[in-house]
Amino acid sequence: MDILKSLEWRYASKRMNGEQVPQEKVDRILEAIRLAPSSMGMQPYTVLVIEDQELKKQIQPIAYNQPQIVESSHLLVFTAWANVTPEHIEEYINYTAKVRSMPVEKLNDFKSSLLNMAKNRTAEENFQWSARQAYIAFGTALVAAASEKVDATPMEGFNNAALDELLRLEEKGLKSVTLLPLGYRDADQDWLAKLPKVRREKDKLFIQQDAKELVV
Amino acid sequence: MDILKSLEWRYASKRMNGEQVPQEKVDRILEAIRLAPSSMGMQPYTVLVIEDQELKKQIQPIAYNQPQIVESSHLLVFTAWANVTPEHIEEYINYTAKVRSMPVEKLNDFKSSLLNMAKNRTAEENFQWSARQAYIAFGTALVAAASEKVDATPMEGFNNAALDELLRLEEKGLKSVTLLPLGYRDADQDWLAKLPKVRREKDKLFIQQDAKELVV
Repeated sequence: MDILKSLEWRYASKRMNGEQVPQEKVDRILEAIRLAPSSMGMQPYTVLVIEDQELKKQIQPIAYNQPQIVESSHLLVFTAWANVTPEHIEEYINYTAKVRSMPVEKLNDFKSSLLNMAKNRTAEENFQWSARQAYIAFGTALVAAASEKVDATPMEGFNNAALDELLRLEEKGLKSVTLLPLGYRDADQDWLAKLPKVRREKDKLFIQQDAKELVV
Repeated sequence: MDILKSLEWRYASKRMNGEQVPQEKVDRILEAIRLAPSSMGMQPYTVLVIEDQELKKQIQPIAYNQPQIVESSHLLVFTAWANVTPEHIEEYINYTAKVRSMPVEKLNDFKSSLLNMAKNRTAEENFQWSARQAYIAFGTALVAAASEKVDATPMEGFNNAALDELLRLEEKGLKSVTLLPLGYRDADQDWLAKLPKVRREKDKLFIQQDAKELVV
């Protein structure tokens, strides 16, 4: 399906019907996430894929009891690196050399610049940067789900600290950023399914800018 | 084109050939940005669309002289709201009521929750939240451009403060977040065009998680 039609079709489902999403569709959504670009190509995030109903039930109260958590087929938890460490960079550089069949020494300058970047930021700044990259992958996942005619509800509304504890993310060096239940809308039960989409008008969202107009 | 094929095709072009992107393709990319979801549906961002070569030349030194700035057809500047103000919320609520043909009073609870949310955060926190939403639109734009076979280079590498000043963003209540030149790759001049894409392997990027494994 055409991307614009997919984006028109999708909405943030408030109710889902519990139906299973076929694995090949889930795999294509995950592959889109995997292919999403990120700053320096580092992909400083990890996505948890939760099918287990028991675990979804444990997460639901942490997410203001939103019904889609347990009515979804798969729940994706986007997490970002809590910090960017020399080990992360080492692994990334070695992997890049392997994929591109080049001697790792050819990447020394790139490696130094990454090490400097990470070192010159606080852990919190590295996390915020990582979180922004995760949002690119999150946006990509939303388009990919819609193109598979799979509903997906982007969620920021949950207790991050409680979810991090439940999922033991700290020991993995991760922090939760967003949730994305995948499933199928229950249009009859969902007040939002019938309402028109609200999007800012083109002439408010975009500014055509040239140099002349900036001269004071 | 299938989204996965589009994502395989795209890469962060380091050189572009200056060729013009047809307006209908640009319009479809902008429409994808407009349809992108955001937290609470607020779309707390504005995208500047720059075709003017003179302005691109002024921006280039602010972005480490990256050639795509001036070799692009259109340069998109993603900016986020510097703060989320009561006026923003008022406008959003009134517009929602209009689009959904409902009395604005029906949105009083929603409005209060938005006002509380914005008030309980510092301006910096509101900006960071807005910036994350802009990254969803940015990710959507990357997929949309690729599906139009238009090259697009996601860029964080520029001097934000200098760009904000040049584009007089402060007086508009905006701060620059990312750049996205749109155009066509110059594969002969671009060292990156020939190299295989590096993406973390599936078993590293994703964790299949169930409740049992979390029991200590």
